[in-house]
Amino acid sequence: MNHERFKSIFPIILNDALDYARSFHASDEMLSWFEKSLTHNTTNGKHLRGLLIPNTLSHILSRPLASSEFISAAKLGWLLELLQASVLMCDDIEDGDVTRRGKASWHAVPGVGLRAINDAAMLESTVFALLKRYFRDLECYVDLVEVFHETVFRTGAGQMVDLISSLSGNGVGSGSGSGSEDVNGDVCSFAGEWGECVWERIGEMKTAYYTVYAPVVLAMYLGRVATEKNLERVRSVALRLGVYYQVQDDFLDIFGEQEVFGKELGRDIRDGKCTWLIAGGWGRADEAQKRVLREWYGCGDGGGRAVEMVRGVFREVGMEEAYAAYEEEMLRMMEEVIADIEEGSSGLKKGMFTDIIHIMYKRRK
Amino acid sequence: MNHERFKSIFPIILNDALDYARSFHASDEMLSWFEKSLTHNTTNGKHLRGLLIPNTLSHILSRPLASSEFISAAKLGWLLELLQASVLMCDDIEDGDVTRRGKASWHAVPGVGLRAINDAAMLESTVFALLKRYFRDLECYVDLVEVFHETVFRTGAGQMVDLISSLSGNGVGSGSGSGSEDVNGDVCSFAGEWGECVWERIGEMKTAYYTVYAPVVLAMYLGRVATEKNLERVRSVALRLGVYYQVQDDFLDIFGEQEVFGKELGRDIRDGKCTWLIAGGWGRADEAQKRVLREWYGCGDGGGRAVEMVRGVFREVGMEEAYAAYEEEMLRMMEEVIADIEEGSSGLKKGMFTDIIHIMYKRRK
Repeated sequence: MNHERFKSIFPIILNDALDYARSFHASDEMLSWFEKSLTHNTTNGKHLRGLLIPNTLSHILSRPLASSEFISAAKLGWLLELLQASVLMCDDIEDGDVTRRGKASWHAVPGVGLRAINDAAMLESTVFALLKRYFRDLECYVDLVEVFHETVFRTGAGQMVDLISSLSGNGVGSGSGSGSEDVNGDVCSFAGEWGECVWERIGEMKTAYYTVYAPVVLAMYLGRVATEKNLERVRSVALRLGVYYQVQDDFLDIFGEQEVFGKELGRDIRDGKCTWLIAGGWGRADEAQKRVLREWYGCGDGGGRAVEMVRGVFREVGMEEAYAAYEEEMLRMMEEVIADIEEGSSGLKKGMFTDIIHIMYKRRK
Repeated sequence: MNHERFKSIFPIILNDALDYARSFHASDEMLSWFEKSLTHNTTNGKHLRGLLIPNTLSHILSRPLASSEFISAAKLGWLLELLQASVLMCDDIEDGDVTRRGKASWHAVPGVGLRAINDAAMLESTVFALLKRYFRDLECYVDLVEVFHETVFRTGAGQMVDLISSLSGNGVGSGSGSGSEDVNGDVCSFAGEWGECVWERIGEMKTAYYTVYAPVVLAMYLGRVATEKNLERVRSVALRLGVYYQVQDDFLDIFGEQEVFGKELGRDIRDGKCTWLIAGGWGRADEAQKRVLREWYGCGDGGGRAVEMVRGVFREVGMEEAYAAYEEEMLRMMEEVIADIEEGSSGLKKGMFTDIIHIMYKRRK
């Protein structure tokens, strides 16, 4: 996947977004703020989701894209990147996270603060303004718009489950002078069937839709293979990959390298998030180890001692090995799923998913 | 306008929204949270914007609506109410406001806090999910969706101008542990041409679109009179009415009655907002009065002493009389604009706007 070529399309997006704002006489001050927000929040990532659109389209067509095809697909990819940025800007406020992609989260930039909430809404709005500008004449325009709508709703629903299942962290509710109280349970609730259901649900809703389902399906519309049957097929594959992606995030949050991962480590510990790691770790812990987890997990203290203590228990009970085994299992399972894909008449291609699983497998950021 | 009949449609909206969430296996906990957020944030207002849709449609058709017509128009009205709710939920966080419509702002409800950001996003998403459910088969479906998109973008742009033009208040940037610094100017910058341009721009973008333009235009699509020419006509009328509505809000924030207005008074003073009132007040103040305004306007202290001091100066320089004169002028101007509307072939009706101006004129909440 050609990241440099993809990045070369960003100035078009930026210019057209500013143009749209200018069309109703936005002031220079506003335009300059808008440009800063757009640039800060979208230009420093892996652009995995955006890149997947031209890449998937090329698989569907079984050939390299013509220049105009690439530009269309990359524009759509950038709009998905804008959508993701808008989601992450809000997540960072809700979770009280101050770093993202190796630099300050937007709300943590001096002079921004809670204005970031509105800036996030503006980024999402820009997606729809530019969808109209670029794709209004395509037969699939309404479908593209609806894929974005559906993605926003599902991602929000996933974030809702994530937030309401968290133990009282220091992120949620700490800002804006609002009263907040601990309405949540105990770390032990994350183990067993309930916990398993929650981290899977979070992965499916919060991560799978915008990370896998949306880019693949948007490319399928461009490539005219988005039949009802294909969409269902992709949905079930995307959900599994999304859960896998979320499990990786959970693991990297505690066992990753901060410089590579680009985010502060241990945020899930601080906020008491329901993750694959705590569900599995709790299930394997003995009484002494459970006492440690109960004391430190969701204690509101990120980094430092909490991470050390919780990571120590996870290591003792073998969660690193469990993760390695999980990765192998996912790889094997996905290879089976991919082998099952009927390439012939459906218009789907195995390569669409092979690429994704290879990008994800053993990722460190 | 029949408020009770309009309110009787809400249970349908609520039920269908929960149904949509249920369709992807949302947990009971999530559904219950979603229901609380939907109900708390939409059921206690004037519903002016929502009511305007059936009312305007009835004017367009020159007859009372049939039951199915009313239900359709009221559903669309409720979706606009949901959109407004989502905007206000975020505004209240950004501005640090803890009361709205006579009760706690959602983020200030115990146990909610910054989760309200995601809840706001969910309400906006729900609008598009239900637009699809209710109106997918109408020829104007895409137009309805695009009116909502445009409204969201303009309202966000207006909020951006509002936030970046404010003097350092205590709302923005105070939450979530993020660093924030005063990047703004002085109250004197609100007087003169620049200030005039800013409060008008805020009124046009932040208020006019969702308060007047969107409800009227949505009804015009339902009534099949949304020609290019009519849309332009309505846009120019809506912008004037929107600015008037915003000026009223500015006035009521300082001279209103808290119990009637439903919001804490003096928030604009605390946050140092660029409003019609401060622009005019500053222009009329002598040196001693300017010293008082400079000391108290945007000082971060809402209510109490700041309101007393600033209101005192506004009273001394005659802003209450200026406001009364402004209201008369708006009424007269709007009557002229309305008299100019060609009812015959256009499909527009004078009554569409007469009703709005009469609802607005001398409103106290």
